[in-house]
Amino acid sequence: MAIQRILSGMRPTGKLHLGHFTGALENWVEQQNLMREDGSRVYETCFLIADYHSLTTSLDTGDLYANSLDMLIDWLSAGVDPEKSPVFRQSRIKEHAELFLLFSMLVTASRLERNPTLKEQVRDLNLESLVYGHLGYPVLQAADILLYKGTVVPVGEDQIPHVEITREIARKFNNHYPHPLNGVVFMEPEPKITKFSRLVGLDGKSKMSKSLGNTILLSDGSEEVFKKVRNAVTDTEKIRKNDPGRPEVCTVFSYHGKFTPQMQRDIIEMDCRSGSLGCVDCKKICAANISHALLPLVEKRRYYEAHIDLVTEILYEGERKAQAIARNTMEEVREAMRLG
Amino acid sequence: MAIQRILSGMRPTGKLHLGHFTGALENWVEQQNLMREDGSRVYETCFLIADYHSLTTSLDTGDLYANSLDMLIDWLSAGVDPEKSPVFRQSRIKEHAELFLLFSMLVTASRLERNPTLKEQVRDLNLESLVYGHLGYPVLQAADILLYKGTVVPVGEDQIPHVEITREIARKFNNHYPHPLNGVVFMEPEPKITKFSRLVGLDGKSKMSKSLGNTILLSDGSEEVFKKVRNAVTDTEKIRKNDPGRPEVCTVFSYHGKFTPQMQRDIIEMDCRSGSLGCVDCKKICAANISHALLPLVEKRRYYEAHIDLVTEILYEGERKAQAIARNTMEEVREAMRLG
Ligand code: SF4
Ligand code: SF4
Repeated sequence: MAIQRILSGMRPTGKLHLGHFTGALENWVEQQNLMREDGSRVYETCFLIADYHSLTTSLDTGDLYANSLDMLIDWLSAGVDPEKSPVFRQSRIKEHAELFLLFSMLVTASRLERNPTLKEQVRDLNLESLVYGHLGYPVLQAADILLYKGTVVPVGEDQIPHVEITREIARKFNNHYPHPLNGVVFMEPEPKITKFSRLVGLDGKSKMSKSLGNTILLSDGSEEVFKKVRNAVTDTEKIRKNDPGRPEVCTVFSYHGKFTPQMQRDIIEMDCRSGSLGCVDCKKICAANISHALLPLVEKRRYYEAHIDLVTEILYEGERKAQAIARNTMEEVREAMRLG
Repeated sequence: MAIQRILSGMRPTGKLHLGHFTGALENWVEQQNLMREDGSRVYETCFLIADYHSLTTSLDTGDLYANSLDMLIDWLSAGVDPEKSPVFRQSRIKEHAELFLLFSMLVTASRLERNPTLKEQVRDLNLESLVYGHLGYPVLQAADILLYKGTVVPVGEDQIPHVEITREIARKFNNHYPHPLNGVVFMEPEPKITKFSRLVGLDGKSKMSKSLGNTILLSDGSEEVFKKVRNAVTDTEKIRKNDPGRPEVCTVFSYHGKFTPQMQRDIIEMDCRSGSLGCVDCKKICAANISHALLPLVEKRRYYEAHIDLVTEILYEGERKAQAIARNTMEEVREAMRLG
């Protein structure tokens, strides 16, 4: 059975938070480690630090490199294994830009304007000021995926249109430029609907997000975690310790759902409803369980922070590997296009 | 006085015609060879085979490489000196694509839509089907120029808007990303209004153009030139040999204007008007003068065609030199952007 390849990426926003973990990293590590019965891997995984993508929304690059390393440390701490999965920066592999330029000839501007994700984004922005590279976001994404011949793209329902553009570009390329030997250069990657569990923010807002300042970082120690959880929004109608509460509207309880073992959680739910559990105690348990889950990550981070040379070495090694794949793909592209 | 650098380019359309010569190549060679009194060059010249640009209007790449070599042979035959001017293909220097991607973040889509040249092009086409990379044409052009730190852009009046976009992009980059040592990475290049003499086609149409099939090729031998000139449109009201003619409406006479010495031309003009010169004889003179001008080009072409390895070597050597400049520029870009 042919190996499947997955290219996943994140913009380098700096230290990651719990939302990144449950929303993506956990899946990445699972895909990376998934084995067949014969001991072979189900997926080859590549992890991209999408630093060029971050330019579509902010031109401020002063912290981009520091943020990239910080994010990489979180990846490694969360279980990304650089022996299995090359990690690399988009801006270090020139072939991303090269394939982006070629692909930009294979899609119309109006096709990109119809992209629903973009439409959502420009609804809040001024359409007049839509940046040309922002319009081309899905083209760069197609280049990212196809440069590494990704065959599977794990996505949430809402991202299927992006994969569709990637598939269209692959198809168009293959039609115009059949490969002299292989037939097609690019497989059309399949979207794989994946459940990414979203985590609500500490303030009860629907999403943890750096810009909202409502996050628990993967690097937070137990004291920090407790301080943050203590201030988290709970059932606002449970005012006194012994008031009965409604776990289903409580932010803290949603964290229990992710970090507290089923049995303990059932007891908490019961005791909250009956009023025998106060929020302060409940939060202590929650913070302890989150910290328990984060403990190995925090320890690994401490190690990598003390060995930052190792981190950059891992990055360079990943970029060396990615470069080799990228160069191969572009050679095939040149052959198929007969660019000489 | 700081040296000025000019980046000029052409799409690889194959063998060039007289229109390319009078419209561009002649100027290129002049700029290349222009000397100051102290024996130093006024301009550093770089000549780009813009193979990626040709994708904006045709995805057919089957002949792109052969056409590139054919065009290069014409360049060399017309006096481009690879010792003075590196010659290179856009698609071989990945940094063009890299800078294109970065610059695509510095200009809005609507700014590009307002580009008058584009507007002209889409007037004939279906706007719905405007290709994304076509919209970005001036962005790639800006990348071409600034990658080699072009300081002067020789342009016809109508191309000034393109240079304006390049200047805007340079300014925006410099504002966002001041260089830690040099202050600015990119000089804003100055447009230098240049008279490019257009040549009318053999059919009397306003432009010689491959697609109209109304050209004299730089590689045409004297027989071929005569055959073509013999069929050229003249004053349609001069029907018999001894009818008086009007040189000002005659295609052939416009060629005399370019290839026939002043004195001989004055006589021809007089004799045409008086009716003492017939078109057949006039065309013989014209063809002879064109062939005379082309003779050294045709001979050089014969040499290069017999030594095609030399041509590819010249190309590779040019690409090596261009690569070195491009790499330097991109290193400065990364430093200024602090990409690490
Ligand atoms: S006791 Fe726990 S679950 Fe109930 S409202 Fe308070 S924090 Fe939320
Ligand atoms: S004589 Fe010469 S210039 Fe006069 S119309 Fe004929 S071709 Fe033209």
